[in-house]
Amino acid sequence: MSAEQSFFIRKLAILGLGLIGGSLAKALKAQQAVGEVMAFGHREASLKRGVELGVVDSYSLNLADIVKDADVVVVATPTIIAEKMLVDVLQLVSGKTIVTDVASVKGNLLRAVNTHFPVSPANLVLAHPIAGSEKSGVDAAKADLFLAHRVILTPLESTSADALTTIRRMWQLAGADVIDMPVDEHDSVLAATSHLPHLLAYALVDALAGLPEQQAIFRFAAGGFRDFTRIAASDPQMWHDIVLANRDALLNRLDQVTTRIAELRDQIAAGDGESIKACFARAKTARDTFGSMLADQQKTSNNSSISHE
Amino acid sequence: MSAEQSFFIRKLAILGLGLIGGSLAKALKAQQAVGEVMAFGHREASLKRGVELGVVDSYSLNLADIVKDADVVVVATPTIIAEKMLVDVLQLVSGKTIVTDVASVKGNLLRAVNTHFPVSPANLVLAHPIAGSEKSGVDAAKADLFLAHRVILTPLESTSADALTTIRRMWQLAGADVIDMPVDEHDSVLAATSHLPHLLAYALVDALAGLPEQQAIFRFAAGGFRDFTRIAASDPQMWHDIVLANRDALLNRLDQVTTRIAELRDQIAAGDGESIKACFARAKTARDTFGSMLADQQKTSNNSSISHE
Repeated sequence: MSAEQSFFIRKLAILGLGLIGGSLAKALKAQQAVGEVMAFGHREASLKRGVELGVVDSYSLNLADIVKDADVVVVATPTIIAEKMLVDVLQLVSGKTIVTDVASVKGNLLRAVNTHFPVSPANLVLAHPIAGSEKSGVDAAKADLFLAHRVILTPLESTSADALTTIRRMWQLAGADVIDMPVDEHDSVLAATSHLPHLLAYALVDALAGLPEQQAIFRFAAGGFRDFTRIAASDPQMWHDIVLANRDALLNRLDQVTTRIAELRDQIAAGDGESIKACFARAKTARDTFGSMLADQQKTSNNSSISHE
Repeated sequence: MSAEQSFFIRKLAILGLGLIGGSLAKALKAQQAVGEVMAFGHREASLKRGVELGVVDSYSLNLADIVKDADVVVVATPTIIAEKMLVDVLQLVSGKTIVTDVASVKGNLLRAVNTHFPVSPANLVLAHPIAGSEKSGVDAAKADLFLAHRVILTPLESTSADALTTIRRMWQLAGADVIDMPVDEHDSVLAATSHLPHLLAYALVDALAGLPEQQAIFRFAAGGFRDFTRIAASDPQMWHDIVLANRDALLNRLDQVTTRIAELRDQIAAGDGESIKACFARAKTARDTFGSMLADQQKTSNNSSISHE
């Protein structure tokens, strides 16, 4: 038995049993890396379904029951709910229980925790698996959802090395490529690559949908438009949570891009062809370079990462 | 023999032998709908290659030689060059020769023609096949490029009914779904669905590529970002031509969308969750509705429409 295989979580608690929490439970069960998996949530139907499907072993509607003896508690609720849930859990458990999450933004969680714990608890490891699916809910959960996808951990100075190692190995066993990053950098990078593109796609489609000629507009749209606007079909509630949770980093990035758009507007109005071509050429070079990086990254994965980035 | 099959172009001239012109020649040859196909261009290597590949039967570097006896002349050059080329051809040919094009913008061509012909010639039929490929050049030409793709014709009051019928049937024989639209509406609809998304994708990628943390940004980008920015890999020269050719309609659309982005920015800054969610939900509804339209449209086609929309 290798060192990797000896990793074992005796009791795992999943709070919020949907696609992400359910897939993590399935992945760890498939690796025989977990003993008992218990789930907590507000929708009993989902929890019952999770037990029926064998994704989890049991559930409770009482948070304290679920978390009290857990080795690892994973807060897998929507972003905004996770703020309160993390605080509640940290107040219920002892320092032996490792508390982690799966949310798309980290700064808001840290601020919420620090309101109650001026020094961030050593047993808290914030984490963000960059994976998802067009489907949601525990029925869509699958053991290979995280295979070859990135998981970003944002450890703090106060984070215990043991807790960090446990969460890192947990995600590695689920097949993920695990990376550490400071909280601010995480939120800034995700604002640029995920939150801002979603915002622009929503704004574009909403603006066009409000025009009198919208029927003609969408009727003659082709493949480029389809790709560009695909993310505007993502869950409005989830993305509402994310843009508010990451407000400062997102507005910062948005202002950088709208400044660039305004410059380009002036260049087009002035017929400044050289500047326009230079902008397009720089963008193409960057997209081509990073396009091959993205292709490599996705090659070993069969998951489309649309709705939970 | 059906009426459709009796359609025949005795002599077809292609000016600018690339992906689009070459594919049209191949499609018409495959349908036995054309006698002789001749090509004109400035790059002799491409013309020679076209003959070697059997895409065209002959070529000349002399424009007058090519167009003088043609039944149909297709200007298939880049957008900006097409302005002058259309005028040159219309000055060379008699009213019996039908002159058409394949450019992405129509208003600039009409303005160029009207400078020399205050009344637009009856033998001029402006056309825009909405199809393309990531590849370019005559080597990439294929007979089924236009299959199940749309071709928009923008007939004028002065356009002869016979000329319009010939160009419509030519594209139908190439497998396209042919629609008529006024010039202004064409340019406005294409600004919204094609030119503006390209502009936003270029601006976003260029802005991010200029940041010090660009390596991290692109490294952690996932599938949503890849789809959203795919069109930023399109040909900078071609898109430079298009945004300048369609300047007014594009700036008009751009201002509508930047106004929407600015409103959304204010709502995020103010924490106005209801307005944000309403915008995202409207966009999702529109994208879901038109997503199925787009899917139907693409179902019968195996062409990705990336670079020549």
